[in-house]
Amino acid sequence: MAIELFNNGKHMCLMFDDLVDDTTNVAVQANQFLIVDNGHGALLDPGGNMTYNGLLMAMHNFFPPKRLEYILASHPDPDIIASVNKWLIHSDCKVMISNLWTRFVPHFCSVGNADGRVGGIPDEGMNLPLGNSIIKAIPAHFMHSEGNFQFYDPISKILFSGDMGASLVPHTAVDTPVEDFASHIQYMEVFHRRYMISNKICRFWVNMVRQMDVEWLVPQHGRSFKGKKMVNQFLDWIEQLPCGVDLMTQDNYRVPR
Amino acid sequence: MAIELFNNGKHMCLMFDDLVDDTTNVAVQANQFLIVDNGHGALLDPGGNMTYNGLLMAMHNFFPPKRLEYILASHPDPDIIASVNKWLIHSDCKVMISNLWTRFVPHFCSVGNADGRVGGIPDEGMNLPLGNSIIKAIPAHFMHSEGNFQFYDPISKILFSGDMGASLVPHTAVDTPVEDFASHIQYMEVFHRRYMISNKICRFWVNMVRQMDVEWLVPQHGRSFKGKKMVNQFLDWIEQLPCGVDLMTQDNYRVPR
Repeated sequence: MAIELFNNGKHMCLMFDDLVDDTTNVAVQANQFLIVDNGHGALLDPGGNMTYNGLLMAMHNFFPPKRLEYILASHPDPDIIASVNKWLIHSDCKVMISNLWTRFVPHFCSVGNADGRVGGIPDEGMNLPLGNSIIKAIPAHFMHSEGNFQFYDPISKILFSGDMGASLVPHTAVDTPVEDFASHIQYMEVFHRRYMISNKICRFWVNMVRQMDVEWLVPQHGRSFKGKKMVNQFLDWIEQLPCGVDLMTQDNYRVPR
Repeated sequence: MAIELFNNGKHMCLMFDDLVDDTTNVAVQANQFLIVDNGHGALLDPGGNMTYNGLLMAMHNFFPPKRLEYILASHPDPDIIASVNKWLIHSDCKVMISNLWTRFVPHFCSVGNADGRVGGIPDEGMNLPLGNSIIKAIPAHFMHSEGNFQFYDPISKILFSGDMGASLVPHTAVDTPVEDFASHIQYMEVFHRRYMISNKICRFWVNMVRQMDVEWLVPQHGRSFKGKKMVNQFLDWIEQLPCGVDLMTQDNYRVPR
């Protein structure tokens, strides 16, 4: 089911949260996003091969997939853009991803299919025009990927935060935003401790986000954080969390006997 | 062209370095590896969709691809295993990857195709039986992926080091090992400074590798380091290199205007 996060008649943000079959626990649940502005469309982190058909069909109700302008990729993991070859064949879209990963995206593709269609986002981020609006690519390096971006929509004031804020819950739980932050931590903590790279980096990100006008923080896995109070609760939590290399010791690097 | 790294008649290690079309600089060069022991075969980091056909054909000269037992994946980047769906269809192989990534691999695949065929390597690594030999999965977390393994073959004494030691050179330069370490640094430095996560982690890895009997360090991109003297030169270099989060400051995390 498509969830309408925002719609003012000209600008629309949609979330798809039930396209991964997570019933057997084989694949991790993931959210895909569509932003449409005045008839121009961008898919954010459209996912892998198992979401492609479902997303294509679901999009048809809101936007003609063939007219897709961008695939915006936070980083090059399989749950983010393993379907990219199919999207490149099916539409004239361009893929935008960190400069660090432009030469890796063609490995998802048939020979020649990515030529001239993968654009690099510089480390400092950029503004991407979409219809009459812009989407901001916000630096999120090492959260978790080395070259990593989040996407901010100044009209809806939604920050599509990628893996930051992700929670591991069944898709049936994802339809509604987090209601009680304290009881939600159990679904985020193990993931953030290991997949986020270091607390130093998380603090840089928190300092940046505190300067932004974010009404809704929507991650790529699990439930979202709606309203400034809830967003701030998340920022306060991640700001103090040791993670990634902070927690590694020599004991983690030993030859198995 | 397949390069024979080791062959004693019963145990063989092969490298394929020219399957990515890197002539236009669109895709990054990558090496793929095949280990065969007494008729049992494992592919290491077989690559993406652009290397699949070439690797399948090249393997035929040495080993029947249908009898493949393992795909050993250092981590889930596209240049590592974006071809995994095709290998799962074409053979009865099992994919072995960090426990952190087992639920992400199915996103490369058609629905159901990965069910029961993705095995998790625990953080501490493990010994994988192959024919009469074992291949050791060696912890390499955060170099660069959060859950990351290198593979060590005790018979050939080759450490397949994944991104560690990678150099960005045309495939025509890859056939021969590094001859002059100092003049090779220019092809490695930018990559290691940004894609390796932190110097603390590199030092843990160096301490571990110094305890191992490594005759040949063979990365997934670029040229290899043959002989203990050359391996040690690489260890000495990476041990002192600031990288990744060491180099990030608040300036890297600002909203683009």
